[in-house]
Amino acid sequence: MSITTPAGFSASATAAHIKPSGKPDMALVVNNGPLYVASAVFTRNKVCAPPVKLSRKAVGHGELHAVIYNAGNANACTGERGWNDALAMQKKTADELGYLPDNVAVCSTGIIGDYLPMENISSGIHTLAATLGSHGSQAARAIMTTDTVSKEAIVVKNGWSVGAMGKGVGMMAPSLATMLVCLTTDAVVDASLADSALRAATAKSFDLVDIDGSTSTNDTVILMASGASGISPDPQEFAAAVKEACVNIARQMQSDAEGSSKRISITVRGTGSDEEALDAARTVGRDNLFKCAMFGSDPNWGRVLAAVGMAPVAMDPDNISVAFNGETVCSETCATAGARDVDLTGEDIAVEIDLGTGGAGTATVYTTDLSHAYVEINSAYTT
Amino acid sequence: MSITTPAGFSASATAAHIKPSGKPDMALVVNNGPLYVASAVFTRNKVCAPPVKLSRKAVGHGELHAVIYNAGNANACTGERGWNDALAMQKKTADELGYLPDNVAVCSTGIIGDYLPMENISSGIHTLAATLGSHGSQAARAIMTTDTVSKEAIVVKNGWSVGAMGKGVGMMAPSLATMLVCLTTDAVVDASLADSALRAATAKSFDLVDIDGSTSTNDTVILMASGASGISPDPQEFAAAVKEACVNIARQMQSDAEGSSKRISITVRGTGSDEEALDAARTVGRDNLFKCAMFGSDPNWGRVLAAVGMAPVAMDPDNISVAFNGETVCSETCATAGARDVDLTGEDIAVEIDLGTGGAGTATVYTTDLSHAYVEINSAYTT
Repeated sequence: MSITTPAGFSASATAAHIKPSGKPDMALVVNNGPLYVASAVFTRNKVCAPPVKLSRKAVGHGELHAVIYNAGNANACTGERGWNDALAMQKKTADELGYLPDNVAVCSTGIIGDYLPMENISSGIHTLAATLGSHGSQAARAIMTTDTVSKEAIVVKNGWSVGAMGKGVGMMAPSLATMLVCLTTDAVVDASLADSALRAATAKSFDLVDIDGSTSTNDTVILMASGASGISPDPQEFAAAVKEACVNIARQMQSDAEGSSKRISITVRGTGSDEEALDAARTVGRDNLFKCAMFGSDPNWGRVLAAVGMAPVAMDPDNISVAFNGETVCSETCATAGARDVDLTGEDIAVEIDLGTGGAGTATVYTTDLSHAYVEINSAYTT
Repeated sequence: MSITTPAGFSASATAAHIKPSGKPDMALVVNNGPLYVASAVFTRNKVCAPPVKLSRKAVGHGELHAVIYNAGNANACTGERGWNDALAMQKKTADELGYLPDNVAVCSTGIIGDYLPMENISSGIHTLAATLGSHGSQAARAIMTTDTVSKEAIVVKNGWSVGAMGKGVGMMAPSLATMLVCLTTDAVVDASLADSALRAATAKSFDLVDIDGSTSTNDTVILMASGASGISPDPQEFAAAVKEACVNIARQMQSDAEGSSKRISITVRGTGSDEEALDAARTVGRDNLFKCAMFGSDPNWGRVLAAVGMAPVAMDPDNISVAFNGETVCSETCATAGARDVDLTGEDIAVEIDLGTGGAGTATVYTTDLSHAYVEINSAYTT
């Protein structure tokens, strides 16, 4: 049950000694056709890595034969040499497989600012090409960085399926994250449907997971369709399956977020539009004082009000209500009886906020608490 | 050397048992004239506390006779009862001193969402009125919450002076903070000069200290002028003295920020305008991954690039440079030799970023690292 579950895909993984640990750190995913339809979404960070620029160009044609992955080094902020290294990764993969370079996407994740060890990369690609098979789960493990578990999903429909793998535990944000996701399907779809389904799915999954408001230089989500099932699904059914796979991976990322001890959903209602509700929910989800309170299982709803009051959206400051796990702790911007006694010791916390304008706007974002472990992991990443 | 150093001011402090610790938690500052000129700036948070609304109204006349302070309870998110409590605080203070209520400002800080213990407040005000004297430093201690040290400043000029006290260690942000500041001066100034000097000073001091992007429901900075020196300073000299006092208090707040182990300045250059530079500097200053790296004394400049790349300002993504403590670690968006070896173990870190557009825009913000202690303090505040 992996990205090689849908018919027409093979994958491989190897340890190329890019990660100091010696763990697997390269993966290859190949679409064997008969269709080579592809779509992708990338980071919105202005500082984006050479592999992102290269993959954006490659997938511009709406077709891909393969994606080459490495973990442990993001090949970001590496200038012209980094660009040439990404080109070399692409060409070596294409040469090994007998494709044109332009049909190969490149994804890198890991530390920013170091040059790729190109000898290791090159021999790694040789090994990957020689060991292709139904090794989707191995590939999912090879792209991990500070992930503690690999992340896979499969959505099986009537005669066709969507498989997915992803990595990403920090830097989750509105414009994706240090997040690499690969989706495969054997459904018969054209580039237009693949693209619209992927964009709709990421907007309702990865874009709503916001761990720390940071984004990465390398975020890439790629969908490849082989058509090997011979089945052309209903477009809405296809879009729903892609969304289901993305939501599944996104929730796994939320659970595995760096140092997280709580999964927190923040739902905002009572705004003029869904966009305003999303802005307000993000503002709360990024507030460190709120996130620390959640780590302490502290129903300190005053932090929710202080945070949401800074959101750039219309609200009625005297008519805000807040509920934790279904219990109203604040009504008309005042405490309710027992508000300090709500039990937040569980792993999941649902925060509901009504901004009191009577509007029909609503949105939910998914975040985590801010813990000692987050600080620990992120204060000693390069050292 | 306190807020009672300028002629014409008296102050007092008392323990009214609002803080569970039993430490002093109320203070009174009185302007004995002959002038009663006043100006104030308040939080921009839409959710603002009754004392903020009341003080905004009081200072609207450009005059104040006194400010009554309490710590341990913010009287925020307390609805109509909270508004009536703030009014009662104002009236009791006015009655004790023989002033009109409208000439008294009210400042509260502490936990959000609890009602004030009005009996304690009332007897506290009685004590404060009976013990007025040159007790500025006692007042500075009484307004502390999680501050570890009291914060005072004095700027002495030729025959006149500006005194200041402040409290605030978290929630520092562009629109002030859980920050209460009182400035006193015996200079002869009118309301217009007091107001312009105060606004210019806060823009270049408190507004540039940004610890966690959060803001408070209660932030208030008040300037009172007694005219008791009889000296009318040059307006520019007066503005400079007010700014010096504000910058001094702001730096003390930065040093005492919750859980901080580093003082970090972030300077951005090479943007089209100062406003763009400020936006970019704030974006970096609020990035948790960057702040964790600083806590770890880790010269992980990739985090600076990943953060600044999300700033909503024009930049040349291939021509960004970064320096830590004067050593260039990134040039043309690539690592320099020795970039990973820069020593950041000291308490002060200066980050300089040039966004490469050739523009003349520049700005500096002041923040801190994100430490275990920040998480510790803020995960157990109400409990």
